[in-house]
Amino acid sequence: MSDLVQGYDPRTGEPIGDPVAESPGTEVDRIASAAAVAFPAWSAVAAADRAVVLEKVADALDAESELLVSTADGETALGAPRLTTELKRTTNQLRLFAEVLREGSYVEATLDSADPDIIPPRPVLRRVLRPLGTVAVFSASNFPFAFSVAGGDTASALASGCSVVVKAHSAHPATSRETARIVTDALREAGAPEGVFGIVYGTQAGVALVQHPAVRAVGFTGSTAGGRALFDLAQGRPDPIPFYGELGSVNPTVILPGAAAGEDIAAGFAASLTMGVGQFCTNPGLVFAPEDLVPALGEAVAATSGGAMLTERMCDSYTASTDALAASDLVSAVSTGERPDQAWAVAPRLFSVPVAVFEENVGKLTEEHFGPAALVVTYSSPAELHSALAKLPGSLTGTVHAAESDHAEAGAIAEILQRVAGRLIFNAWPTGVAVAWGQHHGGPWPATTNPLHTSVGATSIRRWVAPVTYQSWPDALLPPELRDANPLGIPRRVDGVLGVH
Amino acid sequence: MSDLVQGYDPRTGEPIGDPVAESPGTEVDRIASAAAVAFPAWSAVAAADRAVVLEKVADALDAESELLVSTADGETALGAPRLTTELKRTTNQLRLFAEVLREGSYVEATLDSADPDIIPPRPVLRRVLRPLGTVAVFSASNFPFAFSVAGGDTASALASGCSVVVKAHSAHPATSRETARIVTDALREAGAPEGVFGIVYGTQAGVALVQHPAVRAVGFTGSTAGGRALFDLAQGRPDPIPFYGELGSVNPTVILPGAAAGEDIAAGFAASLTMGVGQFCTNPGLVFAPEDLVPALGEAVAATSGGAMLTERMCDSYTASTDALAASDLVSAVSTGERPDQAWAVAPRLFSVPVAVFEENVGKLTEEHFGPAALVVTYSSPAELHSALAKLPGSLTGTVHAAESDHAEAGAIAEILQRVAGRLIFNAWPTGVAVAWGQHHGGPWPATTNPLHTSVGATSIRRWVAPVTYQSWPDALLPPELRDANPLGIPRRVDGVLGVH
Repeated sequence: MSDLVQGYDPRTGEPIGDPVAESPGTEVDRIASAAAVAFPAWSAVAAADRAVVLEKVADALDAESELLVSTADGETALGAPRLTTELKRTTNQLRLFAEVLREGSYVEATLDSADPDIIPPRPVLRRVLRPLGTVAVFSASNFPFAFSVAGGDTASALASGCSVVVKAHSAHPATSRETARIVTDALREAGAPEGVFGIVYGTQAGVALVQHPAVRAVGFTGSTAGGRALFDLAQGRPDPIPFYGELGSVNPTVILPGAAAGEDIAAGFAASLTMGVGQFCTNPGLVFAPEDLVPALGEAVAATSGGAMLTERMCDSYTASTDALAASDLVSAVSTGERPDQAWAVAPRLFSVPVAVFEENVGKLTEEHFGPAALVVTYSSPAELHSALAKLPGSLTGTVHAAESDHAEAGAIAEILQRVAGRLIFNAWPTGVAVAWGQHHGGPWPATTNPLHTSVGATSIRRWVAPVTYQSWPDALLPPELRDANPLGIPRRVDGVLGVH
Repeated sequence: MSDLVQGYDPRTGEPIGDPVAESPGTEVDRIASAAAVAFPAWSAVAAADRAVVLEKVADALDAESELLVSTADGETALGAPRLTTELKRTTNQLRLFAEVLREGSYVEATLDSADPDIIPPRPVLRRVLRPLGTVAVFSASNFPFAFSVAGGDTASALASGCSVVVKAHSAHPATSRETARIVTDALREAGAPEGVFGIVYGTQAGVALVQHPAVRAVGFTGSTAGGRALFDLAQGRPDPIPFYGELGSVNPTVILPGAAAGEDIAAGFAASLTMGVGQFCTNPGLVFAPEDLVPALGEAVAATSGGAMLTERMCDSYTASTDALAASDLVSAVSTGERPDQAWAVAPRLFSVPVAVFEENVGKLTEEHFGPAALVVTYSSPAELHSALAKLPGSLTGTVHAAESDHAEAGAIAEILQRVAGRLIFNAWPTGVAVAWGQHHGGPWPATTNPLHTSVGATSIRRWVAPVTYQSWPDALLPPELRDANPLGIPRRVDGVLGVH
């Protein structure tokens, strides 16, 4: 039947768990409309009280960690240790937003006094950020917790005062259903308005959600093709809405000569490449290295083992696209890791290409092969890299490995990479994304659909809030953030100066 | 010849000034490419030095005020007093951005220390905003200075470190050419890189600009139809780019019963409605008033005089759309002002409709009639307004006139209006937009294409900057904004706390 979403065990390829019904259009409409009705009440809850609600949701998820991790492991084969950590990261993310709400500067309260003498004259102006309304969140396959039902998009949107409707990822329906149950119950127990959070299942439900009149913004993590299709729908609406998609990324990683001479570089690379069967948006898929480092990188990858991919389609796509690369005249196959005996398992693969050939074929050679595959672009001198790096498509990350002797060159390369990547990493690997005030998980197209925004970190809340300026309003009729006395005690900008005043 | 842009005197309908050649595709490519080449050098200029450059551009424009105002008056008929003020506003806007650059918090420098014990572990993260690249700016017809060649989009983009290519508005080619000459010379004299600012002419040049690979973002002020077409082009690119359009707005204005009893309300309304021949995006085109105020509003409008509109097309469009409204069964014609004897002159017009009829026909009755026309929506009790106001399309402004006795109702209406308008005004009129830290000139679709952003005020610079996070970089290789010692002395967020540290 086409109207059921069935989970599968990637290790066996067999169905696992009860299927979940796809949400028909009427159900999507009911859930989105309920979220829209809940929005004014939720957005009127004081930020400090929303913080408490988020913490209660986090606690409720932690309390069911065992069930969630085992359910997700069955549907994703990502393993209990990784999933336990990922769930903790997810609940810590909810707690970070509680901190963001209590700190209060995320509303950017700005107070200007009047100046009748300037041209044009300035009345009393007070600006604050307010939540947009109902947000649609599309879950990712590769992070069943951190970028799924209770992940960063949901956490930041609920924190902002928006209501949320999640489109579950079809690769982990049971995990989605269990997570949604816990979130819904925790929100209800914490006193949040009914309908402030909902979930829908199935591809058509996702399409209907992006086009629903009540939906005011969309968060998405997934493939470039899928993200582009939904982006086009959101922008093609009679009333276009903000669409924040985190899509594909090849994550250029430059190993400079001094660093290449170090001991751990090949092992570090192979570990980052194969972690989670390479199913990270920050996987180091494109490595620029001295030609003489290739044998060591090849040996390190040959010593690795792959694993089962999240879905049969991903397994097939990885196999087909890396086979096509192997058959290409442009690149050389360097080495292959082990393929475990599991239904949807793949082997890590490493290829190489000289930088001159790479630069002439940047378009062809920067397609993402989602999984544990990488292309080493070889160089003789780092100066050969500059023009090639400048031509790279947008990535979430750009990495430089440099010894003390490489520092000047590292600075020059950072200057180029900061135009094509959202996060620049020094002497580490791009996999692993901390949840913090200063994090940026974004970048130019096709890394994301909007380079100004991040899907991880404190500032990801900005995607869901928009300014309103109050001109000449009586103090008693202003939101508390903008009143003379600063009753919330939050940082504000007063006549241009930031401070708690 | 179709490849010339000719200015016209709206008072006579006759050509005025020398025509300017439309820019062929090769010229657009040359200018956009030169801007892209200039970008790295311009973005590398320290913010404090860019501030000095902006001030020199402002001074140069002020020094040629007489020429600019007389040229613009010939092409727009807006009158020397208004244009003199508008030019001063334009140069003050450049000076505000100089202040924004010196203050320095616009880069949102954020420093997080490491925490190896949290899940996931946090490395040292340092986030800063960097300019996007080359920006295309589309000039508006109705503000030949403040929203044109050297207007807010250009000022904020140059301030951010972006290079700029302006598409001149075809209604004022000579004003555009003179402004561009002054800006180009002033930038050169101030030492800005050659090509950092360019200008193109003609509709096809604008289309080519939005599709040019070097252009990384677009600012637009104009009609909903024109803005939507360019928005669709920008989003339909192989690499979609941010498009910030300020489009149409009906600017709902609610006159509550206590305020309606005041003395100046009708005269204030008529003055705001007819200022600049109603050619403001913040024109109060939709007024909610007690039924018994209609005669006074009608008399006030009857006592006004219209004027020549900016273009023949706008004149024709205003006449046709207000004639259609007059012929509609839904509304009543209330009064008409005087039409001066000038080629493209129009008369102010006032219509009325009961709120119940309005609410059933919101879509039809909220089309913008660009020019000095307004529709009064009449009510008996303010409570009748709530559901109608909630159905309004997005506007740049929402206004409430309230006496002391109306305050509770004003608060309830503000709560509704803040979901549909970007700026809420109390006991004043929406025309007139101060340039300030706390200004917001934006709103939900169709007021703008992106509700998160403003085209006026200090935060308009945000449209042109995107975050980059540096992970674990040596201090000496970081941008100065992110170094330990805070050499620029700017406000930063350090471990979550805002301050100058």
